[in-house]
Amino acid sequence: MSDKTALTPSTHTTPPAAFSHGVRKGNILQVAGQVGFLPAVEGQPPTPAGPTLREQTLQTLENVRAILAEGGASWDDVMMLRVYLTDTGHFAEMNELYNAYFAEQDLQAPPAARTTVYVGLPAGLLIEIDALAVLD
Amino acid sequence: MSDKTALTPSTHTTPPAAFSHGVRKGNILQVAGQVGFLPAVEGQPPTPAGPTLREQTLQTLENVRAILAEGGASWDDVMMLRVYLTDTGHFAEMNELYNAYFAEQDLQAPPAARTTVYVGLPAGLLIEIDALAVLD
Amino acid sequence: MSDKTALTPSTHTTPPAAFSHGVRKGNILQVAGQVGFLPAVEGQPPTPAGPTLREQTLQTLENVRAILAEGGASWDDVMMLRVYLTDTGHFAEMNELYNAYFAEQDLQAPPAARTTVYVGLPAGLLIEIDALAVLD
Repeated sequence: MSDKTALTPSTHTTPPAAFSHGVRKGNILQVAGQVGFLPAVEGQPPTPAGPTLREQTLQTLENVRAILAEGGASWDDVMMLRVYLTDTGHFAEMNELYNAYFAEQDLQAPPAARTTVYVGLPAGLLIEIDALAVLD
Repeated sequence: MSDKTALTPSTHTTPPAAFSHGVRKGNILQVAGQVGFLPAVEGQPPTPAGPTLREQTLQTLENVRAILAEGGASWDDVMMLRVYLTDTGHFAEMNELYNAYFAEQDLQAPPAARTTVYVGLPAGLLIEIDALAVLD
Repeated sequence: MSDKTALTPSTHTTPPAAFSHGVRKGNILQVAGQVGFLPAVEGQPPTPAGPTLREQTLQTLENVRAILAEGGASWDDVMMLRVYLTDTGHFAEMNELYNAYFAEQDLQAPPAARTTVYVGLPAGLLIEIDALAVLD
């Protein structure tokens, strides 16, 4: 029997396809690609936190964090964050937001590794992030 | 000594460079990026299952599955699927195909997490998928 | 207490944001996205090994290797390499360089799985590679 469990925070909608927002199996936790959607409201379509990189980056990080927490993990357990941006011109601002966000997280362990690449995303979305964590 | 083993299903060609189609080490199994190539025929170049998203998506999923099986894993063990599309306009159709495919797989565990991004692929290829699995 | 450790080879600059060049926790090692920067020189900005795919690919692989080594791992432990190129026209040459590089590494285990996709990267950079390793 598998002990693989789906992680679905109350803030998240049911996934729009046959995937999980996050899964944990043993001490491995994988967070699916998150975007800057606000907490789900029943009967309403997913809505980005706002049109700006600032709003979407902070909401995306919060959405990743919610899934980690649902699986009993924290930022300290994260090994890798994959950051997908749509514009190389957003790199400096994303880093500023990223640094400020993590400065407030009271990390006890070294920060995760990270890869940032520039891809296409659905219209209106400026950032997507997924995460791989290894729990103690 | 490492117990890392290469996973090369009989349906697959020898990789075109110094990589493995899949590797397993301990309970971790990684599937390399798969595309919609039909089962290899000796002496012939790799050939996509067809020009359509439908044909390529179903063949790509089957190619991922074959590597999982070669390593003693099934879809139930998959933690993460990374889906690379070339066109945001393909998202809805890919999700329909994805959902229908997994509805037929008789999953016993929650579905894997997933990230979908839009990138460039070699001419004629519309989708690429890789997978990370954790076995029991 | 977490045993997660940051991997920062002496050849690498301090990361430009709140991430680690690599992290190891237990037997899992993740290398952040590496590009073809030459070994860091104090007081100077990061400088690519050269403008060509050859120069950048070989330096990028060396930068990945340095982080693996810092964490007590080698190429034999690598499960997955993600290769990000900017131009599909670079695939054949990258494969030649990749094959030649690994032919010289005296691998004892099967090569890692790999996914190659085509994305945007900061101006002047032609390749980025990250790696997931599982140690014995």
